[in-house]
Order: sequence, then C-alpha cells, then structure tokens
Amino acid sequence: MTEHDAAAPRPAGVSRRRLLGLAGAGTAGVLAAGAAGGLIGRVTAEDASALAPAAPAGPASADAVEFTGPIQAGIVTPAQERLHFVAFDVLTDSRDDLAGMLRTWTAAARRLTAGRGAGPVGAADGAPAAVPDDTGETLGLPASGLTLTIGFGPTLFTTADGRDPFGLASRRPPPLVELPAFDGDEIDPAISGGDLCIQACANDPQVAVHAVRNLIRLGQGVVRVRWTQLGFGRTSSTTTGQETPRNLFGFKDGTNNLKAEAAEALDRFVWVAPGDGVDWMVGGTYLVTRRIRMLLEAFDETPLGEQEAVIGRAKGSGAPLGRRAEFDPVDLTAQADGRPAIPETSHVFLSHPNTAGTAILRRGYSFVDGTDGEGRLDAGLFFIAFQRDPATGFVQVQRKLRTDAMNEYIRHTSSAVFACPPGVQGDDDWWGRTLFEG
Amino acid sequence: MTEHDAAAPRPAGVSRRRLLGLAGAGTAGVLAAGAAGGLIGRVTAEDASALAPAAPAGPASADAVEFTGPIQAGIVTPAQERLHFVAFDVLTDSRDDLAGMLRTWTAAARRLTAGRGAGPVGAADGAPAAVPDDTGETLGLPASGLTLTIGFGPTLFTTADGRDPFGLASRRPPPLVELPAFDGDEIDPAISGGDLCIQACANDPQVAVHAVRNLIRLGQGVVRVRWTQLGFGRTSSTTTGQETPRNLFGFKDGTNNLKAEAAEALDRFVWVAPGDGVDWMVGGTYLVTRRIRMLLEAFDETPLGEQEAVIGRAKGSGAPLGRRAEFDPVDLTAQADGRPAIPETSHVFLSHPNTAGTAILRRGYSFVDGTDGEGRLDAGLFFIAFQRDPATGFVQVQRKLRTDAMNEYIRHTSSAVFACPPGVQGDDDWWGRTLFEG
Repeated sequence: MTEHDAAAPRPAGVSRRRLLGLAGAGTAGVLAAGAAGGLIGRVTAEDASALAPAAPAGPASADAVEFTGPIQAGIVTPAQERLHFVAFDVLTDSRDDLAGMLRTWTAAARRLTAGRGAGPVGAADGAPAAVPDDTGETLGLPASGLTLTIGFGPTLFTTADGRDPFGLASRRPPPLVELPAFDGDEIDPAISGGDLCIQACANDPQVAVHAVRNLIRLGQGVVRVRWTQLGFGRTSSTTTGQETPRNLFGFKDGTNNLKAEAAEALDRFVWVAPGDGVDWMVGGTYLVTRRIRMLLEAFDETPLGEQEAVIGRAKGSGAPLGRRAEFDPVDLTAQADGRPAIPETSHVFLSHPNTAGTAILRRGYSFVDGTDGEGRLDAGLFFIAFQRDPATGFVQVQRKLRTDAMNEYIRHTSSAVFACPPGVQGDDDWWGRTLFEG
Repeated sequence: MTEHDAAAPRPAGVSRRRLLGLAGAGTAGVLAAGAAGGLIGRVTAEDASALAPAAPAGPASADAVEFTGPIQAGIVTPAQERLHFVAFDVLTDSRDDLAGMLRTWTAAARRLTAGRGAGPVGAADGAPAAVPDDTGETLGLPASGLTLTIGFGPTLFTTADGRDPFGLASRRPPPLVELPAFDGDEIDPAISGGDLCIQACANDPQVAVHAVRNLIRLGQGVVRVRWTQLGFGRTSSTTTGQETPRNLFGFKDGTNNLKAEAAEALDRFVWVAPGDGVDWMVGGTYLVTRRIRMLLEAFDETPLGEQEAVIGRAKGSGAPLGRRAEFDPVDLTAQADGRPAIPETSHVFLSHPNTAGTAILRRGYSFVDGTDGEGRLDAGLFFIAFQRDPATGFVQVQRKLRTDAMNEYIRHTSSAVFACPPGVQGDDDWWGRTLFEG
C-alpha cells in the first residue's frame, strides 16, 4: 500500500488491507490456495460456510469510497443505493485517442469519487467565456459513496466485422467471449453488448447520473453511448435495521450472496489470478449484465404458497423453506411432508452453489423503465454478476436454471459481458494501463 | 379537525392546522381575501414577498405523511426525494366499477401512506392458497414520506370520441381543458394525457414504485397504465445543509418557488375556491405535467457566462445575476454595464411572477430514461405544476416563455392536465366522492 492510500478515505465496508492480507501480500497473492488449480470444481462444505452472512458494514451514505487500490471499487464494495450503468461504442480507430480518453476518464474518476467536479476548475469557477469542465449538478453534494468501475467488452479486442483497430486482438482474455443463447432469451441487441462499460453506483442518483454524464462528455468523439440502465437497490433504512433488500417479487434477494469478507471464496470465484494465464487481468474480474424483466402482474396473481415454492424461501422472513430464519443454512436435502422442503425446481435450489457447482458475486438493482405499451410496467432486475470466468460462473449457473420455476415469470431482455481490469494504483496509473502497456 | 387527525402523523413540513388557520376555518375559508375576485391579476409587491424563502422544514426521511385532510398531501408537502408518476386509461363504461375502484384505491392509499401493505392481510401473512393482498417489496421498510395524489383528466368527463359513459360530462370543471400547443412542442401522444393519474412521492424509490404497482394491481380490469415516469429530486443531504436542488443543467432550480408556508399566495394561485364555480373542486387544484427533455450535450458545450445569461442566475451561488446570494430578491430592473443585469430573454426574467403576471407551484423531478438512440442521454426535468386554473397558471407562464433563451436547450415531449380533488376527510371519505356524490 502506498502513502497515498493511507491518507485517502477508507474503502467502504471492507478493509482492503484485510482483504488482501487474507490472500497474501499484493496482487501476486490474490489467488488463495483453495482455487490453486485454476478450475472451479465441486463446492465444499467449507466453501458453503464462506457464503454465510457477515455483519453488514455499509459506509455512511455521504462518505467517499477510495478509488485507487489493487482491485477496482464497486465490485466488493457493499452495494450503494443507486446504479447508473452505461455501455459505449468506440467511434475511433485510433489507439492513442482511445488510451488518451481512458487517461482523461481516470483523472476525472479520481476527482468524482472524492466528491469533486470532473475537471480541475469546476462547474462555476471558470472564466465566463470558457466552457465549464464540470456540469455542476453535484455542487454542494457529498461524494455519496460513488464508485466507478470500468469494463472492456469482447468487441474492443476484435470488432464485430473482424477488425483489430487497436492492436488488442492478441490480448483478448480467452474467457471474454459473447455469452451463449439460453432457452427463453428475448435479448434486444440495441440494449446489449458494448465495447466499454462504466458501472456508477452511489447513494444519491444525482451523483451517479452526474458521473456518467460527465464521462460521456469527456469521451465525446471517441465513444458514444450505446445503452444505459438506471436502477435502485439497497434502501437506506428499514424499520428493523439493515436488512437484505427485497426484489420486485417482494422476496429478500441476496441472502446467500458472496460477502466482501469471504476472501477465500472471492479469490476462488471472483478474482482473476496469476495462474489463469491473462497477466493484465490479475486482480480483475469478468462482469456479466442481464436485464431481467419481471412479469409482475403474473407473479402477483400467484398464491403465496406457490410464490414461495418458486423462490424456495418464505416471503416474510426470507427463511429457506422448512427453516425459521433468513440466515438459517440452506439444506437442500431437507424433507417436509415426504417431499423436498425446498423444491428441486425452486430458484434457491437450482442456483445454490451445491447444485450449480459454482458461485458468483451478484450486485443487482431493480428497475422500472415505464410501460411495455400493453398497459404493464416494464420493470425487473438489472442483474450484475462478477466472476473469475463467465463460463464457470454465470453461464454454468444459468444453464442449471433451465428448469427454474421462476422462468415463467421473467424474461432476459439484454445481455453483456466485460473484462474489468485490476484497480488503478498510484498517481500515474490509469484505467486500462495493464492492457495497453502491460 | 377531527379526533382522527389529532392522533395521526403530522403533515410533513407544513402544519395543516396553521395553513388553514391562516385562511379561515375549514375549506369554506380556503379562499383568502387577496384573491377574492377569483381572477388572477397583476402581482403585487406583497405577493412577491410571499414568494420569499422560508426555512426548509422537510420531514424525517422515514416518517409517514398524513394522508387525510382538507387538501391532498403531495401538493404543498415538501418534495420528497423520488417520484413515480402514473397515468391511466379507463377500460370500463361502468360508473359503479369506476367508483368502486376509487374506494378500493383510497383504502389502499390510507394503508400505504402509513407504511403498511396495500391490503389488510399483507404480503406474507395470508393462507398459502390465497393470492397475497400486497406484493411485499416494502415489508420492513418505513413509510418513507409516501404521498399519493390523485387527478382526473379531461377524458374522464368526456371521452376522446365524445361519449359520457360515467355521467360526468356536466361536472367537468371549465378550467379542465386540454393544453394548447406551444411553439417548439414535440409532444408524443403515447406518453401524454390520461383519464386518471396518481403522483406517488417518497424518500425511497422502492416505496413509491411499490405503491403505484399495487394501485395498478387493484385497478385491474377497470384501468390500465397509459404511461409512467420515474424521477429523482431533492437529494437527502448536502455538504452545506438543506439546499435548493440543482437540475441537470447544474443550476439551482426552485429558489423562488411558492412555499408551503406562503398561505396567501397558495390561496391566490393554487387552491380552487368557492367563488370559482366548481363546488366539488374546492380545496383542490389543477395539475399540469410536462416531460421536458434537456439537451445536455448542447448546454454542456456552452460557456459559463452564456449558461448564466440563459438562466438568469449565477451557476455557483444561485444568486440572481447582479446580486450576491441565492435568496437576494430578484430585481428585474437592475442594470449592469448599461444592460439589464438579468437578461430579458433569461428564464428567470420571463418566468418571474412580475413578468408572467401569475405564479404556479412547481414540483419537478429530474429523469434519465436511457438513450435517444443517437448516442445521447434521454434526460431532463419532469415538470409538475399545481395551479388554480391552468389558463392563468401554466399556460400563461408558458406563453411568456416563447422568447426564453432556454428553449434552444429543451424539448417538451409529453403533456397532461388533471383536476386534483380536495383531500380525503374522515374514515368514510374516498378519492372522487365530491365528484361522484357531491
């Protein structure tokens, strides 16, 4: 860790020192012994216990989250309340222009995540004849936990028409391939894919929107927006303290997600390690996004018992069916009235690490995007997953979900995959340096 | 005031007792002397001073806002952080079905605004074989300042094809007419108009979305969603305490808005009074919505001095041009360097009550609705205005804005007008009773 790190705001909810301490010193040690083979195999009981809950430790809602570090913020950072996700198409064939923009973006991201403007002068302090270097809508607002996380899509390495304008084709990570089609997909290409992405998360939507909008502005001529998604997630307070947020089906969602504190499981399932064969991605991870429309009207007409059988948990407590409390261990073998307590077609059964044989770090946000033109809300979950390899992460889980009873009530409408490089370290580092210069 | 009121949560930020106390006792006294003529004429210096700021007094973010009272909540209630607005088309020709749904909605709204579920049983406490009477995503969440405000569109009284299915045509308030077309309008009919609307505001988007979604569910077969709009507004905290929020141009927006404390100005400009000739609307108001897309990219490329000349205020402080602080009085006659300090084409100049000869109560929310398909954000301001008569309110102001320099940077893309009846009073009252039974 550098002096700069010591003086900077503490990472939210997870001591990055501790996280890396558990895994060894620096990125060279990110790979824990448990996953040394590089292949993700059968999940052990110990792994399952690593998925157990830890005390929630979210940041104060206004605080800054440190931007620099060996891993990017916004991955294991406890989920902020709001999301603005944006995917870009690159307009230029110039490697220098692209790298230049990434340097500019990095400088802006350092400032924005610290609660400052996108440029050194600011929105209101420049000369009257000059165009301001920030758009101003966060003047007076705190950093609000803003994180900015970058990803590179497969088409950045080889364009859709097979060209290699940036000389990056040979550096494409083998795991970074377009996702396969799945049963029931209703993917709209216009809101899928992208050469680059930025995930902006903050506890204030104005702060997340401001960051994305200023990065768009700074990228003018080099990139253009392909698609964006707004979302809302963790709610700031509950009557009973910090709780697992509920999705738009009304069920707690994320109870057994990988936790930032579970360093071994993260090293096994999330972070790219030296043995994985892509040096510039060590300390990085792969990001899968799926816009999952939820057919709320159909689910709302379903009896409570059937809803719970679809999910595999009690609606009120969030307890696994057959158990009493939300964080009671999921026992897939438990019986009730001579049948499995947790039905074998339930979402909890099929997505459980012991069934799927793998685990992913999820970071979903609910969305409502107006209506579908048929008098129904176009609403659902913008699903975000981080994993060490999409093939053994999201793709493996999603194939297992082929018989998921929930499929009747959801439609996947957009899809994308990105390689998220390691974090920016030190004052001269920039987003993509390990890719372009490594 | 009834015993029920005394026991209920206090209205947010404005003592309804005090508000009505200033104007007399009960709705019969809502009309203050200053507007006794019923016509809104020249604005006096006293009126202008009524537009001066009052100390902000927002509710704690989790608290409940009282649903019942002589006026509807959500109009002078200090703006909550999030908006979910929904407009409906009526599917039925049955007056009984329509009135029955409004009774059902009212019962649900009483519960939802108190932080409870939409139905008496709740999302998770019913029989397994029964469909839950709430969808559940706010289980454990507080009321979060939720207000639900209803409005009736012109087409509820006479359908677009000239029919009168509900026997309401003779009860249509004369001020409730479709808005005229304005220069530069780019109105999309698919996201305009509506027979009914609900404005849901809360400090948690999940709470606002939950309320709208459950009202949609309870209206099934009687209404269907025509369009919806999500928005975000007042941010929960600033580094310098409560402040006027900034719009997506980065300027403070709402400095000189009518204040909940300015009872005389509200009575003159917002509330329908007995002398206005529509008895069932006394204590009500008219709601105009305009979805105003802001051409962010164009504005962002404009020099700071030109931005400030377009708005009429300093970007940093929010002070009127030529003055030093945000709340310094706007002096439209002030000169600077031999020219008007506040340009005559600026938004502040043209929309000022002394120029427009009227005033409206604004309640706008910013929105970002993805992209426009051309690589730009589809973002802007969902403008909401309440007024005693749209002709002497929004229409009069908007005509004055014909020469507004801001027009270069904005496009109105949706438009609607609704009559918001008075508040629900007592346990047997319901939304629309004064219209259907009055």
